[in-house]
Amino acid sequence: MKHSKEDLLKAMTLEEKAALCAGLNMWMTKGVDRLGVPPIHMYDGTNGIRKTNSDEELGITGENMPATCYPTGSAIGSSWNTDLLHEVGVALGAEGRQMGVQLLLGPGINMKRTPLGGRNFEYYSEDPCLSGELGAAFVNGLQSQGVGASIKHYACNNQEYEKMVTSSEVDERTLREIYLNAFERIVKKANPWTIMCSYNLVNGSYASENEHLLNDILREEWGYEGVVLSDWTAVNDRISGLKAGLDLEMPGPAHYNKKVIVEAVAAGQLEEAQLDKTVRRILELVRKTTDSQDDRVQAAIDYHELARKAASESMVLLKNDNRILPIDAAKVTSVAVIGKFAKQPRIQGAGSAKVTPTCMDIPWEEMKKIAADSIALTYAEGYPQDDSEDELLIQESAALAAKADMAVLFVGQPEYAESEMHDLTGIELPLHQVKLIEAVAAVQPRCVVVTCSGTALAMRPWVQHVPGVLHSWLAGQGSGRAIADILFGRVNPSGKLSETFPVKLSDNPSHMRLRGENGKLYYREGMFVGYRYYDRKELAPQFPFGHGLSFTRFAYSNLKAVQHSGQVTVTCSVENTGDVFGKEVVQLYVHDEECKWVRPEKELKAFAKLALEPGEKKEVRFVLEERDFAYYNTKYNKWVAETGYFQLMIGSSSRDIRICERLHCHFGNEEISFHKFSLLSDWLSHPNARAILESCLEEMNAHVKDKIRLDDEFIGFWGDFPAIKIIQMFGQSWLIDRSPDQVMEQLIQKFERERHA
Amino acid sequence: MKHSKEDLLKAMTLEEKAALCAGLNMWMTKGVDRLGVPPIHMYDGTNGIRKTNSDEELGITGENMPATCYPTGSAIGSSWNTDLLHEVGVALGAEGRQMGVQLLLGPGINMKRTPLGGRNFEYYSEDPCLSGELGAAFVNGLQSQGVGASIKHYACNNQEYEKMVTSSEVDERTLREIYLNAFERIVKKANPWTIMCSYNLVNGSYASENEHLLNDILREEWGYEGVVLSDWTAVNDRISGLKAGLDLEMPGPAHYNKKVIVEAVAAGQLEEAQLDKTVRRILELVRKTTDSQDDRVQAAIDYHELARKAASESMVLLKNDNRILPIDAAKVTSVAVIGKFAKQPRIQGAGSAKVTPTCMDIPWEEMKKIAADSIALTYAEGYPQDDSEDELLIQESAALAAKADMAVLFVGQPEYAESEMHDLTGIELPLHQVKLIEAVAAVQPRCVVVTCSGTALAMRPWVQHVPGVLHSWLAGQGSGRAIADILFGRVNPSGKLSETFPVKLSDNPSHMRLRGENGKLYYREGMFVGYRYYDRKELAPQFPFGHGLSFTRFAYSNLKAVQHSGQVTVTCSVENTGDVFGKEVVQLYVHDEECKWVRPEKELKAFAKLALEPGEKKEVRFVLEERDFAYYNTKYNKWVAETGYFQLMIGSSSRDIRICERLHCHFGNEEISFHKFSLLSDWLSHPNARAILESCLEEMNAHVKDKIRLDDEFIGFWGDFPAIKIIQMFGQSWLIDRSPDQVMEQLIQKFERERHA
Repeated sequence: MKHSKEDLLKAMTLEEKAALCAGLNMWMTKGVDRLGVPPIHMYDGTNGIRKTNSDEELGITGENMPATCYPTGSAIGSSWNTDLLHEVGVALGAEGRQMGVQLLLGPGINMKRTPLGGRNFEYYSEDPCLSGELGAAFVNGLQSQGVGASIKHYACNNQEYEKMVTSSEVDERTLREIYLNAFERIVKKANPWTIMCSYNLVNGSYASENEHLLNDILREEWGYEGVVLSDWTAVNDRISGLKAGLDLEMPGPAHYNKKVIVEAVAAGQLEEAQLDKTVRRILELVRKTTDSQDDRVQAAIDYHELARKAASESMVLLKNDNRILPIDAAKVTSVAVIGKFAKQPRIQGAGSAKVTPTCMDIPWEEMKKIAADSIALTYAEGYPQDDSEDELLIQESAALAAKADMAVLFVGQPEYAESEMHDLTGIELPLHQVKLIEAVAAVQPRCVVVTCSGTALAMRPWVQHVPGVLHSWLAGQGSGRAIADILFGRVNPSGKLSETFPVKLSDNPSHMRLRGENGKLYYREGMFVGYRYYDRKELAPQFPFGHGLSFTRFAYSNLKAVQHSGQVTVTCSVENTGDVFGKEVVQLYVHDEECKWVRPEKELKAFAKLALEPGEKKEVRFVLEERDFAYYNTKYNKWVAETGYFQLMIGSSSRDIRICERLHCHFGNEEISFHKFSLLSDWLSHPNARAILESCLEEMNAHVKDKIRLDDEFIGFWGDFPAIKIIQMFGQSWLIDRSPDQVMEQLIQKFERERHA
Repeated sequence: MKHSKEDLLKAMTLEEKAALCAGLNMWMTKGVDRLGVPPIHMYDGTNGIRKTNSDEELGITGENMPATCYPTGSAIGSSWNTDLLHEVGVALGAEGRQMGVQLLLGPGINMKRTPLGGRNFEYYSEDPCLSGELGAAFVNGLQSQGVGASIKHYACNNQEYEKMVTSSEVDERTLREIYLNAFERIVKKANPWTIMCSYNLVNGSYASENEHLLNDILREEWGYEGVVLSDWTAVNDRISGLKAGLDLEMPGPAHYNKKVIVEAVAAGQLEEAQLDKTVRRILELVRKTTDSQDDRVQAAIDYHELARKAASESMVLLKNDNRILPIDAAKVTSVAVIGKFAKQPRIQGAGSAKVTPTCMDIPWEEMKKIAADSIALTYAEGYPQDDSEDELLIQESAALAAKADMAVLFVGQPEYAESEMHDLTGIELPLHQVKLIEAVAAVQPRCVVVTCSGTALAMRPWVQHVPGVLHSWLAGQGSGRAIADILFGRVNPSGKLSETFPVKLSDNPSHMRLRGENGKLYYREGMFVGYRYYDRKELAPQFPFGHGLSFTRFAYSNLKAVQHSGQVTVTCSVENTGDVFGKEVVQLYVHDEECKWVRPEKELKAFAKLALEPGEKKEVRFVLEERDFAYYNTKYNKWVAETGYFQLMIGSSSRDIRICERLHCHFGNEEISFHKFSLLSDWLSHPNARAILESCLEEMNAHVKDKIRLDDEFIGFWGDFPAIKIIQMFGQSWLIDRSPDQVMEQLIQKFERERHA
């Protein structure tokens, strides 16, 4: 743009400003031709670029331009590798610029509240620290290439069912600690150029016009200056939206709302200064995405190779009894490969995130390449396309497995099960696949199951009968190679579950009322989402959050934790004590021992992925801020870290804590104050306050029959009673000219006077 | 009273009216001397009368006048016997009149949301049907004697922690289906003369001034005309309370509030007509409680004998492997009786419900009487008074048990654990007692444990090691005899658990945040309280709701269910197929198979306690109303029974369903209507609406590039989208002069016109 923002703003007519607040069509912003403001292009993409053939097409169900398809959110979330996320971000930026993309509509960072969420495959995790750190790395990578990110969907859009007419009812502490936390991290660490608001309502107000979410929190508290855009058609009342801070309505042109904006300014219902704020932010976005950048990647990136690497970092080895994996060519001469997904892999989910891949690795072919002449591979289809039951296919598979030295089964959720707009109906494998696994495992104990799905699977019917399980998620166009590499030990798996795999669906914390009801969806489990719930309920998951096996072993030692001026530094050593190279995700969890209110048993606060040669030992160093020890206190409406003892736990998973330390941390003390309903025990806990209350009770005792003596028995019984109620209960014959309210007011005033004296 | 209410009202001054709105002191209402309106006396009493020595004394922790102590709420709730509750009500009325009581401050019918509730022992059940039916029977019995009841605590006062400053945050459906349901039943079936409001706030407004609870629901919907009185000091803002319908402030005289009322009327802030409503209700209460009654019991009641009968009906035989009970004098010659509670039984809880019993049966003495010379009883203390650990007492007990033919252990929650004002901290037995049981069971496999507590116990550490468990609750002054009678088979136990006994505390639905936090306590489990939760979570309790064993067996047969004009009649036969007389509680649960929204797996809707001689067979007949099939639909804010299939399940416990039938019930159909956000699938489900929408889309298609075809693929993906959003998404280049809102408005108008044409 040749003019400055302020010059442009001055030059623009009210109509031009109003028009700029909506897109030009489905995928572009409007420009202002006469002033040289160009339109910019934006496309879907949480795991790749979904660019339609025309800017006016919606094309969710049709084909799009080919682009690299990376692992979906839940897959790459399991890499726990911020460097990898940055690298993928850079690659998507570079590829995006080649394709003419100025804004990429991702990443998706909503929390996985229920495993049934139809878009779960697009989201990283059930934990806000993991999601936030990975998201920030991705956004920083992407934007370094001059392509803007759009973190989405802000906020509390955690399932698909009637999401456009349903209000997510969430208490403030849960909102802050769980659902906004990842957004806050990314805003603060990566300054995404845009944020996409969600379709749903939050506590009764549309996310597209929610003053609390958009103005109070995002703009005021977090200081966000970027553009907020609507999810496609999420705008409800355009003026309320503008006032709350929603800048860009998509899709456009929304002629009717242009008219509404112009009229509202004319009628004085919307201040032009408010409109100018939005226009300024949109102009700034255009400037950022159209200016040339200095830090762009010059060398060509091998996108497919990166997709393979990302896939192999994402997969999680869930079970590996008797070291059934990797396949040992010295012992195994034949492998039965069973299941259609071996030849027709599922690499992604459906809906707006669906990418047309540039190419695709096929597991069966990649396995053939590695097996070459030394291991004979045979194949059986295993199950029909439509998930009907076919006993013959099962018998054929079992017969094939029985003849081989081992069997590898490819199974997973069917294609149609996971999609935007549709929540899943269950998290078990189709019944036919379960029967297939059981039949094969019955005749071939050396049996490995490769599962694919974008969300947690319940495996109880069969998992105890097989020694090996590799969860491949929906890992993009390189997943075929990645699976083959891991099966044969060319890559040592290093993924860790980014979400809890429960024993059964009903174990999930949000199970009580899965759907919203008549427009309200209560977030009943509160902050106890994912592992926070399983910990609190003392409920064993099938595979816990953070779990993932390796072909080598890691030893943890030498944990040290010290506090210095607000920060706490935690260090420990990790050693590869096995005999192959491997990567370990070191996870730091914190527990507050002393808080008066309930806090989770543990919360992830930092993590690092280490690469270690056999015998190599490295030190990990985490620096925690005061905020990492804080909870959101609704009494003050702020984050509070309380002085006291904390547990610092370092583990290889959330349920495999290897080393732990108890540290007393100092974060300042709460200032005492009293109010009308302060409890007797509150008054007694402070010497001055106690003296004031005692002298009041003495006066009262002179007038009443049932006299109060503040002995242990009395305090034991009445301690949790507000002092005012005790006066009301015992002081009736004394309270002739004064009300209990007036008595308390005097006591509080006296306390304040003496404190400031 | 010699004057009519209306005459009195006319004769009273404003000051006299205002004064009448608060008590005279702790336990009396004010009279109006000059008009001959007497004061009336009221006293605590959920399981007996706690009358202080003076009307001005609070006396919660001191001694009171002796009165019959019946089983506490949770005990008698386990009798499932409405006749018994009626009989106890009559007896309390008769005894109350003898003692000068005109109003008894009970029964307590709050739901047991958490087993940690400090007053749980005062409440009947976790189920509103059971609580409501028992409560109604009790109130009818009591009031037949001219003594008024005060059902309490209205509402959502389900724990003690900071209850005076904490708001119970409950969604409307849960409020109606769980927390108000028992109140509603009793109001409608027994018209209690008073209702006591609770201390806490409900959804942000004090129960003592809550318009929604007091006015909208209690007065308007249920038509309640009795007096609402405050729990002691529960009044916050007196004028708000009066306006909402709180009549009587306790304790009085609350001089300050008399003044406030007079001033408010003078200032026009409170209409005198509003005040008159309250005065009229209080005068009516005085009239009812002071008029002579015709249906009073003339013959003397043997109160203690009734207390014994009630106790024996209340106790629950939880476990009886190998028919270890009853003690068979033909096989057993010696019994080791272990545990202090055998000689110092716990018969009730602490706080305002504590009664000074007229006498007390001691288990040890009652057992001696029955054992007489044929069975030798020995005794060991088992554990010290203070629940410290004492290894010697354990060794001594084990040695004693080893020498006898069998052992009976008396254990339970310590005295101090269960009290008004204090929630429990756990539901396990003290560690010393657990060790005692384990030590005794290790040397004496013929071991019966008699537990006492007012709330559910977690028994997992020891229950699997003993063949017999009898839960005696806190069963009042006759409990010693009742225990002895059951142990020796003189009474066949017939109690059934009125609450779920979980395996461990954290299994409980309300476990996530036990306490309120900064003034808010979220009822996060919603309507899934008690067995509704364990069913939905597929979580096995230790002992389920409705469970209780007998010394005989019952066979169920011949279930029939028919609908006729709104009502559904369910009949079945129950036969005593064992060889001793026994009573069986037949439980009818209902499940809605077709509701769009989540409903509990089963809900208790009726029950009956049958007495059957060996070989005797009786038919049970239940008549269910439409309401018994309904849920509270927040779309219409009313109870809705939907036409469709229901399961009718008859069982001996909630997890021992013996016989079941599927019945199609007709309750009318929902009328279709459309609103701005009606979903595509809603529009398509109605032929007229579909035609209207289709013609609109046809018009739109003529103007846009991406045309909509309502084929299966489109509907499959977009069905849950509101039609307005589809127009907004696809119709941008058509929406030049009209907004999506206007389009929808026209479609809805067209539909309405055609419907009414």
